[in-house]
Amino acid sequence: MTVATPRFDRTLSRPEMSIVDAIRLNGPHSRTELARMLDYSRASMTGYVNRLLSAQIVREIGQGRSGGGRRPSLLDLNSSLGYLAGVDIGATSLNIALADFQGRILSQHSEPADVRVEPEALLAPMAEKLSDMLRVQGATPDRLIALGIGVPGPVEFSAARLIAPPLMPLWDGFSIRDYLQEIFPLANTVVDNDVNIMAVGEKVAGAGKPFENFLFIKIGTGIGAGIVANGQIYRGSNGCAGDIGHICVDYNGPICHCGNQGCLEAMAGGLAIGQRGQRLAAAGQSAFLAERLAKNGQVTSIDVGEAAAFGDTHANALIKESGRMIGGVLASLVNFYNPEAIFIGGGVTRIGHRLLSSIRQATLRRSNPLSTRDLRVEYSQLGEDAAVQGAIALALKHVFVLDES
Amino acid sequence: MTVATPRFDRTLSRPEMSIVDAIRLNGPHSRTELARMLDYSRASMTGYVNRLLSAQIVREIGQGRSGGGRRPSLLDLNSSLGYLAGVDIGATSLNIALADFQGRILSQHSEPADVRVEPEALLAPMAEKLSDMLRVQGATPDRLIALGIGVPGPVEFSAARLIAPPLMPLWDGFSIRDYLQEIFPLANTVVDNDVNIMAVGEKVAGAGKPFENFLFIKIGTGIGAGIVANGQIYRGSNGCAGDIGHICVDYNGPICHCGNQGCLEAMAGGLAIGQRGQRLAAAGQSAFLAERLAKNGQVTSIDVGEAAAFGDTHANALIKESGRMIGGVLASLVNFYNPEAIFIGGGVTRIGHRLLSSIRQATLRRSNPLSTRDLRVEYSQLGEDAAVQGAIALALKHVFVLDES
Repeated sequence: MTVATPRFDRTLSRPEMSIVDAIRLNGPHSRTELARMLDYSRASMTGYVNRLLSAQIVREIGQGRSGGGRRPSLLDLNSSLGYLAGVDIGATSLNIALADFQGRILSQHSEPADVRVEPEALLAPMAEKLSDMLRVQGATPDRLIALGIGVPGPVEFSAARLIAPPLMPLWDGFSIRDYLQEIFPLANTVVDNDVNIMAVGEKVAGAGKPFENFLFIKIGTGIGAGIVANGQIYRGSNGCAGDIGHICVDYNGPICHCGNQGCLEAMAGGLAIGQRGQRLAAAGQSAFLAERLAKNGQVTSIDVGEAAAFGDTHANALIKESGRMIGGVLASLVNFYNPEAIFIGGGVTRIGHRLLSSIRQATLRRSNPLSTRDLRVEYSQLGEDAAVQGAIALALKHVFVLDES
Repeated sequence: MTVATPRFDRTLSRPEMSIVDAIRLNGPHSRTELARMLDYSRASMTGYVNRLLSAQIVREIGQGRSGGGRRPSLLDLNSSLGYLAGVDIGATSLNIALADFQGRILSQHSEPADVRVEPEALLAPMAEKLSDMLRVQGATPDRLIALGIGVPGPVEFSAARLIAPPLMPLWDGFSIRDYLQEIFPLANTVVDNDVNIMAVGEKVAGAGKPFENFLFIKIGTGIGAGIVANGQIYRGSNGCAGDIGHICVDYNGPICHCGNQGCLEAMAGGLAIGQRGQRLAAAGQSAFLAERLAKNGQVTSIDVGEAAAFGDTHANALIKESGRMIGGVLASLVNFYNPEAIFIGGGVTRIGHRLLSSIRQATLRRSNPLSTRDLRVEYSQLGEDAAVQGAIALALKHVFVLDES
C-alpha cells in the first residue's frame, strides 16, 4: 500500500526562502514578528505565508504572546513534510543517516563497502537499506525529500556526477541523481566530494562552528582539502578546488597514479606511509614492522604509527618526514589563504599526536608569522561522524530551490 | 575662503544602503520603481527616501514615465556631495586619481617616489597634490569623501595600517587614516595591499569583469597574489592572504629577507632575476649583460628580458627557470583554488611573452587536468592602471558605513 504524500512545489521565491530560513534558525514565530524580522510589509507577508501554508511547507501551531488583543498563531515548519538522508560513501565503508525535516538524526547505519564496483552494485543495496530505515519510521520511499551524498572523488557539483575519479573509475560520468530519482522520486539529490562534506560537518556540528574561513584536510589513502570561505564551501571554478594531494613536493619523487612525479599523496598519504613502512620491514630496519608484515602480508600506515609509539626509530622518522611534507604544503596554503584554523581528519589521523605535532611544526615554521598569530592546527572534533553530519546539512540546504527568475 | 560643505551622516541602514546601491547600479528611478525592485512597502520606502533626501545623499531630478496620473519625480545620487580619490603607492612611484561621486576619473597624476622614507615625507606632498587636483575642480579638501590607497606591503585592513612591511619598515603601525583625517576631514580612508587593489581594478575595469573567482599575481621586486572569491577580495583571517612570495620552492635555496630559505620571491622575483643576471655578467657568461653592468653599474630583470630577446642563451635559460618556479607555485594554487583565470601584472611583466609562456607551461603541466580545462593564464589587461582603478573602486565602496545595529 502506498500512502498518499503531499506533492509540494519546492521552488520558493527569495522572500519565501527567507521566511523558511528564519523559522528554521529562530523557531516558530508569528506573522508580525517575521514581518518585522525580515522587513516585509504586512500585506506582502500575508501573501508569502498563504502560499507557504497552501503548499504545506509551514503550518500554524499554538498561540504566541500578544501585545494586547487576540493572541496571534505561530508559524512553524511542517515536519511531516518528509525526511532527509545523509550518505557517506568512503573508499571502504558506507554510512547512512536518516533525519527529520529539521536535520535531526533519527537513525544511523554503517557497513563495509567497496567503491571499486559498478555504481548500481553499491547504490542498490544502499537505497534498499535507506528504504528500510524509512519503513521503521512508518514512511515510504517517496517521503524522502532531500539526500546529501559524499563520495571519495572529484565531483561536478551541479550535475551530481563524479569526473574521472581515480579510486572509482566505473563511476565516471554516472548520474547518481538520475539513478536514485527512480527509487526516491521526490528527493533532491546533492552529491559532493567527501572532504567538502566533512568540512560542512565540522562547520555545522564540530570545532569549525565559530570560524568563517578554515580548511579541513583529509588524510586517508589520498589527501584532499575542503575549503570554507565566508562560512560556505568554496568549490572553485570546475568544482575541484582543494585537490592538494597532487601538489608537487619533490620533482624527483616517485610516480603518482595521476602520472606526475612527487605528488604529496604519493609521498605522504596513507598508502605511501604503509608502503614505505613495508620497505623498512623488508630491509630489516624495523623488527616491529617485519612482524606485522609476516603476520598480515602487508604494512599499513596505522602499523607504522604503532611501531613509532613502541619506540621504533625508523618508523618514528618516517612519520616525522610525512608530517614535514604535509606541513610544508599546508604552510604554502596558509601563506596563500590565511585561514583561521586547519582541521585534520581521515583514517591516517589514527596514527595520533606524533603525526599531528610534525605537521604543526612544519606548518608554523614555513608560514608568514602574521598568518599564524591565531592559527589553530588540530585534529577534527567529529572524527568519522563529520561526513554524515555534513551530508545531512547539505541535504537540508537543498530541500528547496530558489526561483531566480 | 572656505565653501560651506554638506556635513552628511554617512551611516546608512541596510535598506538605505540598498537604495543607494540600486541607484548607483541602475541609474535614476522613481520611488515606486525602487520599492518594487527592492520589495519594500510604499510606507517604508517613503521613510527611507526622506532620510536620504534630508541627508542630501539623493536628490530629486526631472520626471519619469507614469502609468497614468501625475508623473513621478526620479531619485538620483547627489553628485555634488563630494569627490573620491584613488592612490597607488608603489615601491618607486606614486599615482593619484581624482574621481566624482560615481567613480568617474576626473584627473590623474603620476610621479616617481621612494617608499623607504618616513610616511609623512611621502604622504604630505601626496596630500598637497591631491588638494591641488581638488582646487582645479573648484573644491576644498573637505569635499573629499572617500580615499582608497594601495600600498606595497601587508595591511591590517580594518585599521588601515601596514604591519611589518619589509619594503617600508618606517611605516610599521603608522596610521595612514589618522594622518590623512587631519587634511581631508570628511574622507573615509581605506588602505589595502597593492595587489588586492590591482585585483579589484582588474575585476571592475579589466579582463576580470566576467569572473567571480580569479587570482591577480603581481611580479615586481616581490611577488604577491590578490584573491577574488565570489566576486569579492578575499583577505583571509588576518588580512594577509595572498602572501605567495614566501612559499618555499627550494629548501636549500638562498636566504630570503624574511629569514627563510628558498622563498619564491628570493628565487624568481624581479630583484632575484636582476641579481642572477648580474652574476651571469660577472662570470662572463653573457656579453649583453656584461655591457649593461658596465654601463649602469647593475643588471635589472628588464635587462635580462632584453638579453633573452637578443638571443642570449643564458639569459633565456634564466627567464625560463624563473617562469618554471613561478608556474610551479601557481600549479599548487590552481590545484587548491581552481580559479577561472590568473592575471599577471607588475613591473617584471615588461620582460614580455617569454616569461609568460614559461609560467603558463609550468602551471598547466603540474595542475589537475579538470582545473585547467577552462583556465586562462594571461598578463593583466590594465597594466599599470589596475591599481588606481582598484583604489577608486575601493573608495566608492566605502563612502558609506553600514549600520549593523
